Amino acid sequence: MNLERLREDTQAQMPALRWQHTLGVIDSAVELAQRFGGDVQKAELAALLHDYCKYWPIAEQRSEYAAAGLDPDLLRYDPQLLHGPLAAEIVRSRYGIEDAEVLDAIRYHTSGREKMTLLDKIICLADYIEPGRDFPGVHNIRESAEHSLEGALVAGFDSTIQFLLSKGKKIYPQAVVARNALIEENRSGKGNADETNA
Amino acid sequence: MNLERLREDTQAQMPALRWQHTLGVIDSAVELAQRFGGDVQKAELAALLHDYCKYWPIAEQRSEYAAAGLDPDLLRYDPQLLHGPLAAEIVRSRYGIEDAEVLDAIRYHTSGREKMTLLDKIICLADYIEPGRDFPGVHNIRESAEHSLEGALVAGFDSTIQFLLSKGKKIYPQAVVARNALIEENRSGKGNADETNA
Repeated sequence: MNLERLREDTQAQMPALRWQHTLGVIDSAVELAQRFGGDVQKAELAALLHDYCKYWPIAEQRSEYAAAGLDPDLLRYDPQLLHGPLAAEIVRSRYGIEDAEVLDAIRYHTSGREKMTLLDKIICLADYIEPGRDFPGVHNIRESAEHSLEGALVAGFDSTIQFLLSKGKKIYPQAVVARNALIEENRSGKGNADETNA
Repeated sequence: MNLERLREDTQAQMPALRWQHTLGVIDSAVELAQRFGGDVQKAELAALLHDYCKYWPIAEQRSEYAAAGLDPDLLRYDPQLLHGPLAAEIVRSRYGIEDAEVLDAIRYHTSGREKMTLLDKIICLADYIEPGRDFPGVHNIRESAEHSLEGALVAGFDSTIQFLLSKGKKIYPQAVVARNALIEENRSGKGNADETNA
């Protein structure tokens, strides 16, 4: 399937405002890939598809999630966490996308994971900072993204955790594990900040 | 060993201010046990011993922790997390304390765990609210403790997580798992709030 057709199909899955968000994530992901030495084409593809299932009815997301045999533990948390892992399965089966890096970046774009790849980080961060986003702290995250993927992502996870605390909601432990690993990467200087201008 | 000798031995492990804290935790733990139908004697014993190793030099805590064959994963986090699990091992070997409930309440008093027992909750919460404590939000936690162990503990974990976020420090995932479980208990009404006046 060509990219144009994939864009049309993806746009058809979501309301107009969310499609604007997707276009913003594509732009930000491409920019971050250029800045931090990532694969621009993979970044564009993963960004295009990251919210493929997000506006499906939650009941449909749950049933498709269960039908795909995905980790049932996630069902105990906010249903907002389902659409990433589900999208990875759906775009693989519908469009034959088999690139594991792209699928993982889609899969983990909300939760993060312990060992985030460069592409995981780019998509997750682009989702936080695309131009249409406006939430407390987004300016700090954008500023941090000028020089450090890991620093900016820690700030992004911080804002999510703050939000969940303020609402008395459960926190998905994998997001905490992801944040911890990013803090360690940042400290040890192994982060992709080193790859600026690479 | 009689309780008086155990008190003297425990006092000798820590500076005077920390001993005052321990006395405060004993008072609060006894009060919470009475309020929520816990075992007062076990609460007193666990409270007495919960910080047994806290003022040992960190290097000594680390080496004793490793020597006891305890979970090495914890060594990746703030060393403040070591003294609970270590104290459980030390008081068992030094004083022959074998009561699993008491040992668990000592072991998990800082981190919490997924399925906290009534005694776990009492010691963890008493440690947050004993009269000598003064930190942002402690009044809310004390107020909540008047009627709900779980609600108060969620507020306690919230304050710890807020503190760690503000310092850019890693969050021990087990504390998040503990908080999530307490939120679920609170929602399902299975919390020990039901046991008031039991």
